[in-house]
Amino acid sequence: MSIAASVPIRDAHDLSLAYTPGVARVCEAIATDPEVAHDYTWVSNTVAVVTDGTAVLGLGDIGPAASMPVMEGKAILFKQFGGVDAIPIALDTTDVDEIVETVVRLAPSFGGINLEDISSPRCFEIERRLVERLDIPVFHDDQHGTAVVTLAALINSARLTDRDLQDLKVVISGAGAAGVAIMKILQSAGVRKIAVVDRAGVIHPGRDDLNDVKRWLADQTAGWARPGSIADALDEADVFIGVSGGTVPEEAVARMAPEAIVFAMANPHPEVHPDVAHQYARVVATGRSDFPNQINNVLVFPGIFRGALDVRATRISEDMKIAAATAIADLVGDDLSETYVIPSPFDSRVATAVSRAVTDSARREGLARRPY
Amino acid sequence: MSIAASVPIRDAHDLSLAYTPGVARVCEAIATDPEVAHDYTWVSNTVAVVTDGTAVLGLGDIGPAASMPVMEGKAILFKQFGGVDAIPIALDTTDVDEIVETVVRLAPSFGGINLEDISSPRCFEIERRLVERLDIPVFHDDQHGTAVVTLAALINSARLTDRDLQDLKVVISGAGAAGVAIMKILQSAGVRKIAVVDRAGVIHPGRDDLNDVKRWLADQTAGWARPGSIADALDEADVFIGVSGGTVPEEAVARMAPEAIVFAMANPHPEVHPDVAHQYARVVATGRSDFPNQINNVLVFPGIFRGALDVRATRISEDMKIAAATAIADLVGDDLSETYVIPSPFDSRVATAVSRAVTDSARREGLARRPY
Repeated sequence: MSIAASVPIRDAHDLSLAYTPGVARVCEAIATDPEVAHDYTWVSNTVAVVTDGTAVLGLGDIGPAASMPVMEGKAILFKQFGGVDAIPIALDTTDVDEIVETVVRLAPSFGGINLEDISSPRCFEIERRLVERLDIPVFHDDQHGTAVVTLAALINSARLTDRDLQDLKVVISGAGAAGVAIMKILQSAGVRKIAVVDRAGVIHPGRDDLNDVKRWLADQTAGWARPGSIADALDEADVFIGVSGGTVPEEAVARMAPEAIVFAMANPHPEVHPDVAHQYARVVATGRSDFPNQINNVLVFPGIFRGALDVRATRISEDMKIAAATAIADLVGDDLSETYVIPSPFDSRVATAVSRAVTDSARREGLARRPY
Repeated sequence: MSIAASVPIRDAHDLSLAYTPGVARVCEAIATDPEVAHDYTWVSNTVAVVTDGTAVLGLGDIGPAASMPVMEGKAILFKQFGGVDAIPIALDTTDVDEIVETVVRLAPSFGGINLEDISSPRCFEIERRLVERLDIPVFHDDQHGTAVVTLAALINSARLTDRDLQDLKVVISGAGAAGVAIMKILQSAGVRKIAVVDRAGVIHPGRDDLNDVKRWLADQTAGWARPGSIADALDEADVFIGVSGGTVPEEAVARMAPEAIVFAMANPHPEVHPDVAHQYARVVATGRSDFPNQINNVLVFPGIFRGALDVRATRISEDMKIAAATAIADLVGDDLSETYVIPSPFDSRVATAVSRAVTDSARREGLARRPY
């Protein structure tokens, strides 16, 4: 990855425009009217990809330096799929207050903040506080990118099996960043029967080993979720969504309802192998590119930020995320089948469709600072 | 300015290499041996251009958002002249402690830190503390870029007028970032007869209106500098170096020694107009591109960082700066004349020569972590 200059500096005239004294006039214009910064600098097309290196892929807390390849890879995807200039920022602190303060101080240089690979539950507080403090989009991709693409796949899986979202019995395995965000977006999309499972079984208000986030999950799902193991939870369930990194025994999958939907998204080892899942489920999706139905958040984040930056949205709303999921699902159209519930990451229509859904939503909700 | 991907993402194979799962192996390699980060990420070629927007060009404290055009212009020059990927970071804080802490936290993402347009005297403490805390180069360009290019021009002006640096009587007008750094580098280069002047006249130990930095300047120059006005200081002086933004009356310039050297570097209005200065001085230089002898620090910072990054220098030393100045001066060679004491910013040999001087110096001083 590298920087490319959009203007050539060939002679003294170019130099006097791009730097002193020419640039002084641009500075003065922004000092007079901060809005013009978006026309005269790269800020409005630039996103900081911020991590503290505490939850990098499946590798865990490997620190900021070792996380840089992921951040740089992410930045390349931002550019290729969304035309967004993304800058990797790996922070040498894991303190929540320090991360929040640091990102707030960096904010004038960026049009948006993409949080990445920050461990749960710290990621929730960091995101919440940054959203409060900043008037530019803050998006924790491990939460919301995953949630949006999961919802897209679920919308199409429900269509394929002729079921309504509100009737689906869903089990989410994993109560980290992705699990929590998936629970939220499914609720927002109308799913009512959700149980969230961690290593100790179904999360419910009777447990005394819950942190604040899991207690919140327990409260949110208390109307449906019953105490028990993951096998108990999967009994007659319609949908399994795995974002845990653990494994699910075949016997448990076997207890699911007919026409079951299994999203085993752990990478590189799905919670249940697709070949096994197929014996009991009609739709099987994973996070891997070597099986059909890859649930990959590269379908989401480039278009989300493309749209948000285009209209200078002040934040990423629930409505934008659901609109993005619906747009991704709709692209599948008449090609919908057991092996095609979600578009390919290389479907060139995706980023544009997501971006348009986000800009439309931003306008509807009054979150767009720039008419588009 | 924009980001350019150095690898294409055309299909699932490319995606699996540039992002998960391929990138995990790179992360693991860095976690095992942090040194390989420099081979596998863009960190080792990347410099943060950090400002708080408090001293932007001649515009002063215009804030971080309005400073972005300067930072972006600077980043473009870094790329075009030094092949360095520079990222503008305009901070939303002017607190010294917060700036230091923020930059320390950002450091894992960058191979070097270029401080820019931070007001004096805060800039000195910020730079000093960052140099202490970090093992990557930290360089305040307004100080050291200006000092290096000024020394280069002075070396050649002394050659042209057949004088030794240690005999020169020098008056520096301006006790901000540039003035302090010029005083230091001239001392390091052997100049002994220096007076520094601010709005209240010559800085000397007898004044009771001095801040810590000016008191230090007073102590450093006490052996030579005598109380008085700038006109008194210029009486029989060989060299005037203006980095003040003020003006110097013609009568004062008229009192300088024969074969005087006048560097009136305030931009866009030199302290004394070149046409006036030429009546009394043999060598006249300015910061402007429309007069001969433009003293422009674009001659310095791209090559300084190019060299420092190439050998992964732990810091920028005094020796490197003097070597860089000497290298710039030497490029003029036999073309030396009153109107050519410093190469053009578009002399393509400059960045290479500066870079080589820095890498040689880094090796000599044991500051190079990578053999070159």
